[in-house]
Amino acid sequence: MMPLFIHSLYTATHLNASILCYNKTMSKKRIVLALGGNALQKNGEVTAEAQKKVANIVGAIVAALANKYEIVIAHGNGPQVGNIMLHEENASTDKAPAMPLETAVAMSQGQIGYWLTQAIHNAFAKKGTSRKVATIISQVVVDLNDPAFKNPTKPIGQFYNEKQAKALAKVNGWTVKEDAGRGWRRVVASPKPIDIVEKRTIRELIKEGVIVIAAGGGGIPVYRTKVLKRLRGVDAVIDKDYAAERLAEEVKADIFVSVTAVPNAYINFGQPNATAIHKITTKELTKLIDKGYFKPGSMLPKIEATIKFANKPGRLGIITDINHLAEALSGKAGTIITH
Amino acid sequence: MMPLFIHSLYTATHLNASILCYNKTMSKKRIVLALGGNALQKNGEVTAEAQKKVANIVGAIVAALANKYEIVIAHGNGPQVGNIMLHEENASTDKAPAMPLETAVAMSQGQIGYWLTQAIHNAFAKKGTSRKVATIISQVVVDLNDPAFKNPTKPIGQFYNEKQAKALAKVNGWTVKEDAGRGWRRVVASPKPIDIVEKRTIRELIKEGVIVIAAGGGGIPVYRTKVLKRLRGVDAVIDKDYAAERLAEEVKADIFVSVTAVPNAYINFGQPNATAIHKITTKELTKLIDKGYFKPGSMLPKIEATIKFANKPGRLGIITDINHLAEALSGKAGTIITH
Repeated sequence: MMPLFIHSLYTATHLNASILCYNKTMSKKRIVLALGGNALQKNGEVTAEAQKKVANIVGAIVAALANKYEIVIAHGNGPQVGNIMLHEENASTDKAPAMPLETAVAMSQGQIGYWLTQAIHNAFAKKGTSRKVATIISQVVVDLNDPAFKNPTKPIGQFYNEKQAKALAKVNGWTVKEDAGRGWRRVVASPKPIDIVEKRTIRELIKEGVIVIAAGGGGIPVYRTKVLKRLRGVDAVIDKDYAAERLAEEVKADIFVSVTAVPNAYINFGQPNATAIHKITTKELTKLIDKGYFKPGSMLPKIEATIKFANKPGRLGIITDINHLAEALSGKAGTIITH
Repeated sequence: MMPLFIHSLYTATHLNASILCYNKTMSKKRIVLALGGNALQKNGEVTAEAQKKVANIVGAIVAALANKYEIVIAHGNGPQVGNIMLHEENASTDKAPAMPLETAVAMSQGQIGYWLTQAIHNAFAKKGTSRKVATIISQVVVDLNDPAFKNPTKPIGQFYNEKQAKALAKVNGWTVKEDAGRGWRRVVASPKPIDIVEKRTIRELIKEGVIVIAAGGGGIPVYRTKVLKRLRGVDAVIDKDYAAERLAEEVKADIFVSVTAVPNAYINFGQPNATAIHKITTKELTKLIDKGYFKPGSMLPKIEATIKFANKPGRLGIITDINHLAEALSGKAGTIITH
């Protein structure tokens, strides 16, 4: 396998080099990282201080890669927006009412974006250098006709008893569901991302050499009104891997990496016979999906997003953890998906 | 047809070129708006829905001015970050601990920035057009030797009784003070802004024609460590008018507007003999400060920030409300401060 692998990497580099010279961007490849929101909470530590420490690790790795790659970072926000909603709902009063989920996503973009921006800035400062880093508050367009809105599945916020839950559903127009014997919760739709409102700005920033953090938490979910195409927020949760893949398409990335908690995607994950997947084609990986090897809501969206991206010649999809990112980018670790 | 067609193409290109040159020399004036955080909460209405409606008014006015001016928006966050802190502290648990103030400022930048971005976007959509609008999460550098840190004055978060307050002060290293007979509260410093970390990115965006929202809530307060000049967040509140003025300096604005709740600055504000100030020089206005005409924590910081900005030839400082903004820019309303 190895010689073949090296050969194909060489060819890709060679091809890109000539294209990139033409584009005046020299030899840097453009990479979109989809960082898991859980990845910022190591060992269940959830204070701002603890999450900033994990962000510092990400910062150091990003700074080390920035000479070789143009880097765009999308990140998840599952546990963070969950806590924001818990606080907003539990401490809601008439004078200080709870913010809706769509606004809470914007708040989590500010929160996590700030931590990452500062961590990356400091990693460059440690090297005695500096680079522009910026978090862009990002709206991601969804379709109200997306079938996900007919069957909301993502639990959000606190637990209620059945009576409370049904009363809140009536007052607020929520869908509520019983959650695995633990109580009742609000559930929201997880529609597919179809556009990124701030894409043109994000492109300009990359062109100017800025390390961009965008589409945080899958983006603030918005839809376009039929008349006048105005944007309106909608309470939903967009999968961060799908949103990050959409972002990778919009910025014409060369490489898309789903950065998760494990170094590879696995067949039979969690079983004694678990097998790490190394290099694989989109076609082969699709066959493994059909065999039911990947959990929905866990590895499956990462696999699907990476396949979608890598399904064009010259592109690379990667699934790995933050510690194997550099190695994976040089073809020596991670699950590497090619056309 | 063909030659004609080619000819008209040539003409169009030629025309465009001359328009571009014209735009480069006759460039738009650059304006920084410092929007009050209270301004988004009309008649005490504090839901997200109500604040979005007020943001829509701002959006329409910004869109109407965008052909004539390059617009950068800084905004306050007093009531918004106050409510975030109330929710964070009142509903804090070990599993979902409260975020610190500096991170809460980042959250409020996401929240308000999202509302404003969407409102401005929609105002252009209503006109059948589109413009790039972006909120940049912004860190503002303060000096730990700023005398403000020796005498914290800004109340933040909820009220406590004396015993609770003093216990929390001990555990968290807070300063607490009795607040006008209403109970005890944490107080934080309000240091002066000395730098805006994201200034280079903000400049690039303005150059690319983006309407930028930055330095929200006076910016996320950070300081630079002595060794390695790393950034660290610090719980403080930076006055949004001072931060917006700093931003106006960094982006070399022509006009700085403190957009507040009243159409003018006044002598003897709130008294029967209140007199609106129309056109005034920085020198004359400084004399009025010395006479004690302006309230600290209210009109005084707006007056000071505007004087600081307008104290160079060719620059204009304005104090007015959002409804008089367009008129004030054409010299027909508001308090207009010149060198």
